[in-house]
Amino acid sequence: MIASSVNYDVLSPVKFLSRSAAVYPNKIAVAYGDRRYTYDDFQKRVYRLANALRNIGVGKNDKVAFICPNTPPMLEAHYAVPLIGAALVSINIRLSSKEIAYIINHSDSKAVFVDNEFGGVIQPIVDQLTQVKTFINICDVSDERPLDGMDYESFLTTGSDAPVEFAVDNERDVATINYTSGTTGLPKGVMYHHRGAYLNALGEIVEAHLDSSSVYLWTLPMFHCNGWCFTWAVTAVGATHVCLRRVVAEEIYRLIEEEGITHLCAAPTILITMASYPGASKVEMKRRLEILTAGAPPAPTVIQSMESLGVHITHVYGLTEVYGPHSVCAWQTKWDDLPPAQKAEIKSRQGVPYVTALYMDVVDMETMESVPRNGRTMGEIVMRGNNVMLGYYKDEEATAQAFRGGWFHSGDLAVVHVDGYVQIMDRQKDIIISGGENISTVEIENVIYRHPDVLEVAVIPIPDAKWGEVPKAYVVPKVGAHPTAESIIEFCKENLARFKAPKVVEFGPLPKTATGKIQKYKLREKAWEGHARRVN
Amino acid sequence: MIASSVNYDVLSPVKFLSRSAAVYPNKIAVAYGDRRYTYDDFQKRVYRLANALRNIGVGKNDKVAFICPNTPPMLEAHYAVPLIGAALVSINIRLSSKEIAYIINHSDSKAVFVDNEFGGVIQPIVDQLTQVKTFINICDVSDERPLDGMDYESFLTTGSDAPVEFAVDNERDVATINYTSGTTGLPKGVMYHHRGAYLNALGEIVEAHLDSSSVYLWTLPMFHCNGWCFTWAVTAVGATHVCLRRVVAEEIYRLIEEEGITHLCAAPTILITMASYPGASKVEMKRRLEILTAGAPPAPTVIQSMESLGVHITHVYGLTEVYGPHSVCAWQTKWDDLPPAQKAEIKSRQGVPYVTALYMDVVDMETMESVPRNGRTMGEIVMRGNNVMLGYYKDEEATAQAFRGGWFHSGDLAVVHVDGYVQIMDRQKDIIISGGENISTVEIENVIYRHPDVLEVAVIPIPDAKWGEVPKAYVVPKVGAHPTAESIIEFCKENLARFKAPKVVEFGPLPKTATGKIQKYKLREKAWEGHARRVN
Repeated sequence: MIASSVNYDVLSPVKFLSRSAAVYPNKIAVAYGDRRYTYDDFQKRVYRLANALRNIGVGKNDKVAFICPNTPPMLEAHYAVPLIGAALVSINIRLSSKEIAYIINHSDSKAVFVDNEFGGVIQPIVDQLTQVKTFINICDVSDERPLDGMDYESFLTTGSDAPVEFAVDNERDVATINYTSGTTGLPKGVMYHHRGAYLNALGEIVEAHLDSSSVYLWTLPMFHCNGWCFTWAVTAVGATHVCLRRVVAEEIYRLIEEEGITHLCAAPTILITMASYPGASKVEMKRRLEILTAGAPPAPTVIQSMESLGVHITHVYGLTEVYGPHSVCAWQTKWDDLPPAQKAEIKSRQGVPYVTALYMDVVDMETMESVPRNGRTMGEIVMRGNNVMLGYYKDEEATAQAFRGGWFHSGDLAVVHVDGYVQIMDRQKDIIISGGENISTVEIENVIYRHPDVLEVAVIPIPDAKWGEVPKAYVVPKVGAHPTAESIIEFCKENLARFKAPKVVEFGPLPKTATGKIQKYKLREKAWEGHARRVN
Repeated sequence: MIASSVNYDVLSPVKFLSRSAAVYPNKIAVAYGDRRYTYDDFQKRVYRLANALRNIGVGKNDKVAFICPNTPPMLEAHYAVPLIGAALVSINIRLSSKEIAYIINHSDSKAVFVDNEFGGVIQPIVDQLTQVKTFINICDVSDERPLDGMDYESFLTTGSDAPVEFAVDNERDVATINYTSGTTGLPKGVMYHHRGAYLNALGEIVEAHLDSSSVYLWTLPMFHCNGWCFTWAVTAVGATHVCLRRVVAEEIYRLIEEEGITHLCAAPTILITMASYPGASKVEMKRRLEILTAGAPPAPTVIQSMESLGVHITHVYGLTEVYGPHSVCAWQTKWDDLPPAQKAEIKSRQGVPYVTALYMDVVDMETMESVPRNGRTMGEIVMRGNNVMLGYYKDEEATAQAFRGGWFHSGDLAVVHVDGYVQIMDRQKDIIISGGENISTVEIENVIYRHPDVLEVAVIPIPDAKWGEVPKAYVVPKVGAHPTAESIIEFCKENLARFKAPKVVEFGPLPKTATGKIQKYKLREKAWEGHARRVN
């Protein structure tokens, strides 16, 4: 089959931009502070970047790394790099020098673009990055150029804005590589191809109901699953991207009002930040705000408190390995008249596959048989189809392990309800095995979230001489509240099987990733120091 | 590449049904009169049909013909037939016995399903249909079985409702063959593949903003481009199909009210029927009604009169050869504040390619170069990409002719406006060449539509000794109106360059196809009897 003919065309999300630039040339494509780029500007900047990259010898199958918050250059990279047949490696800005060095080297990146705020993280490792030919400083908050290279805007001027021909003739060619933060071991490079990114982007349009009037706020990092493919979905419909350098509640609400935001994506912790913002209830939303949440199972109370502000929440679920969201808690009209708490309870389920994803199952980990639909029997969530990664870059062993039995293994433990909706009980590594019984840390957390004094909570297993493992809760109280450990434990005993109540409660802040995921493994590492824990 | 693996899956619209049956088993999928099928029912009926077809020896690469109005069996065929790797041949119910015999034989159909209202059209040709092994009577308005075969419901009971495995391992395998009515020559079988149908269905979801709360009324025949792929798009989002046997204004409005219709597709003539229905302005629309119109260039006045009823019109454009709609007059917010007449004027343009179509151009017919964007220079509309047909079934010559120069040739003449929006001036065969000047029949029609006494109009070239060709208008007056030929001609001279005004006006009904297209060629044949006309 040829790459492009009268009736065949390679599926690729980069093509969405040329269509929107043709249809909406004068519409605002990208807003960032006072800056405004029309779709015509956006397209031209992308062509400049693509041509400039070609001028320095970057082409087919090369890799280009970006360490950059959600500013326009990060978005531009999502088009310019795959357009010339290269792969974009967008790196988590909160990683350490050591981790970043590993990723740049492992990915064979030839050019590295760094927002100058993070120059100091790169400077100490420059000598180790032997494959990198070019460094570019992205000067956003200042004009400093900490690395030996041009600034981004000057680099753009080295490329012409003449159209660049699409260099990909196989839709399963790699478009991006996203390194998973990897709670254990070294980061792994998850490869996305053009076809998968195209289909996931269409899936996001369908599930989030995006159209040309949408205004999307970039609360979710673009370095996380390429912003769940919204980097491409928002462009596809000719909507407006509103960039956001730092996720601060006040700024989010200001933009919701001033830019008329209609959509944003955020991990549950961001929802907690938003819901607990003092001015939240005074914000005037001119348009319906749709928030897609994922990244960790959201507690029903968190969903309910956001919806009470007039926001519409859609709960989606996925992993880096499946292009971001793969399932959605698709709403059923029969639930419309339930009380808000029960609605939120239902909405906290991970749900059913996207229209474009199709295949998700929960299976017994030994036999790979589907678990019964009883809301009780736990198994592992597995997925397959066009939105499963091509594999881990240069790691066939890990790929084979993740794909064993013909399915991608999520490592998430879940039950399936009678209606077929999947609900996560825990990460495989997180679940507590106490006296031979499985205890879901998510279940305990969801109860503690209902405690009136609690802002945020994480539950982990800690070693116990008698039971093997018992639950421990780490609690962040609400501002001004001073709950006691006893009151938390008592509250759990009233609302859960008594053996599931935590034995220990500790108060204080929680360690989190850049994308707002609570790092339970860090809590666990501390709790298990000197103890051996079962290996899953 | 294997057909289905952990990270590859054949794109096919038939898979949308299994997803919706899993997600919305108890939701109404299909409503027809008093009948209601849930998604679970729908899926089971499809499995029964698929298994019953396999039992009579229908399988991979076989063809199954349906002659059936928009009733549930027609919809079920769109899933069951491609599911087992066969191709659905859905035949225009208004064709003659002779045309139908040609299509059934040319398509190599092994089984033929006929709604019993049309049994009389098939009976005389049964002996000619030598390849057909099985006839099935679809008994809707009566229990009669005019053909020698079972009735549809009994046939369904011969198949089990056990899930049928999808039999297609190449997404470019043929899913359906749609015979074009063909104004000249024999009908041609336009082949759609699974990938194209899947992508066009997603395109319809995006452009029509379908979601699970949508209720779609089947005014557009499913035998026309598989209902512009809405047969699959409506199912994909878990919306409700409302079947409709006969397109009658009163019935349409009753269903809009009673079923809460949110979407329908219709040719401009259906809009004229709807707008001129006496009770139209009294209809209470509980929900926003979105109408997609295509099939002929809609006159601005027709768009305006429908929108004045509170309907939202989206104008799309395509042909059978491109899976139905390929372009849309994508709305720009800068047009929001224009007066209604001007909005309708803009909306009558054919616009820009669908997000899933991407490639449309208007080219000089000699050089294949793009015409300038000046709103004046005419060229032919050409398309390419995933939504161009595989080709004409068993007709390589016609396929090569349609695909010359690497583009599909539409035969439609158009201009491109400064903003890139395409506007059709005429079919190549319809345009009037008068004294060496091109005169667009669409332009004249649009003016005559503004005449207060006119319901409908068609303009064609007639032979003229001096000018070669001159325009003639066929006018259908509004009920109770009695315009004169002179008043129509005078009105044109006031609103057009004088030489474009018709020389002759005739009053009376217009010949139309089943899909509401005015058959200009029939008017032309009569007018040119005994005269030789240029060949395009």
